[in-house]
Amino acid sequence: MAQRGRFITLEGGEGVGKTTNLSWVETWLTSRGVEVVRTREPGGTPRAEAIRQLLLDPIGDEPLDDDAELLLVFAARAQHLARCIRPALARGAWVLCDRFTDATFAYQGGGRGIDAARIAELEAFVQRGLEPDLTLLLDMPVAAAQRRLQARLTVGGTTRDRFEQEQSAFFEAVRNAYRSRAAAAPERFAVIDADASLEQVQARLDKVLDERVSPWLPR
Amino acid sequence: MAQRGRFITLEGGEGVGKTTNLSWVETWLTSRGVEVVRTREPGGTPRAEAIRQLLLDPIGDEPLDDDAELLLVFAARAQHLARCIRPALARGAWVLCDRFTDATFAYQGGGRGIDAARIAELEAFVQRGLEPDLTLLLDMPVAAAQRRLQARLTVGGTTRDRFEQEQSAFFEAVRNAYRSRAAAAPERFAVIDADASLEQVQARLDKVLDERVSPWLPR
Repeated sequence: MAQRGRFITLEGGEGVGKTTNLSWVETWLTSRGVEVVRTREPGGTPRAEAIRQLLLDPIGDEPLDDDAELLLVFAARAQHLARCIRPALARGAWVLCDRFTDATFAYQGGGRGIDAARIAELEAFVQRGLEPDLTLLLDMPVAAAQRRLQARLTVGGTTRDRFEQEQSAFFEAVRNAYRSRAAAAPERFAVIDADASLEQVQARLDKVLDERVSPWLPR
Repeated sequence: MAQRGRFITLEGGEGVGKTTNLSWVETWLTSRGVEVVRTREPGGTPRAEAIRQLLLDPIGDEPLDDDAELLLVFAARAQHLARCIRPALARGAWVLCDRFTDATFAYQGGGRGIDAARIAELEAFVQRGLEPDLTLLLDMPVAAAQRRLQARLTVGGTTRDRFEQEQSAFFEAVRNAYRSRAAAAPERFAVIDADASLEQVQARLDKVLDERVSPWLPR
């Protein structure tokens, strides 16, 4: 039987450079012979992506209830775990996931003010003890991230979804919640200062990967 | 401030005549001056109906994980409670609902074999103590209900959804779960033998309503 794979998550607010740096981590791993399943939350399977759409799309002018939002997030997560993450880890593949439960604590908890104890209740219900082996948190001041995001939107002409339209105070709360979680679990988190050039951030990522992930690589 | 309205649910397996008899109960109430909000689960608001669609539609060949199914059911319920049921009851309207949490215990619990304790955990999470004041359970042998359903489908040419395609053993388990719940909470449930003509069933419903609902009517 294959050794269980490792579960690595990348977290951070809007504009911190998650997508680019996720590819950097993926390349780092695959160039060292690791089979990587790259995925994202909410989503990661067709059914979970359909749930993601319900979360992102406004439906008429009906506000989404906080409890309903939380239950949808964890419904997508249960599906993702059952159909993608757990089977991949079981066969020895590594899972590299763009956001996971820390994002729920940051966005629904810090951002929307839902009681963290209620989030923890659903976390225990769905994950049954499974946690990421390593969580890379890309961190930078909200104003700097917002400037990057604005530049990207102006160039790309992308439309902003419900979450991206939230105000700065919301993103400050999200950032604070992320940093609190990292401070509370330093053995799982690595915080990377992302307020720097791409090359500098990637050098910082390499350092973390060399120190913390290299020991996990197959010989 | 208005007196809180009453919350009445109608439950039963496929083919027992829920829709017709729901109208009968609605007419009984409105003819006695009660403002009735008639609704259904899963669903009852546009967002909750969108979640209902995710539950009913097959998406490719990806099975829906049991936990994900349960969380979707309760996400729809949280939305329905927040945007429809609780506000209606608070302003003094009565809510008449086609299925509620007993259906989750019957279908996901009895039918799919999900642990009732897990369902109860989400019930407590979402309902925070709110329960129906009266639950009318339309009960009949599965074989008889299946014959009715078959006749209806042959006439109407309706397509059968994922739940209706389940096998008889599934429906036996659903019926047994419903009857167990009714036996365990006789103060909330009224079991109506639905294996009879429509007139007979409606006479039975009238008797229950006269005995148990009349005392609740506004003077």
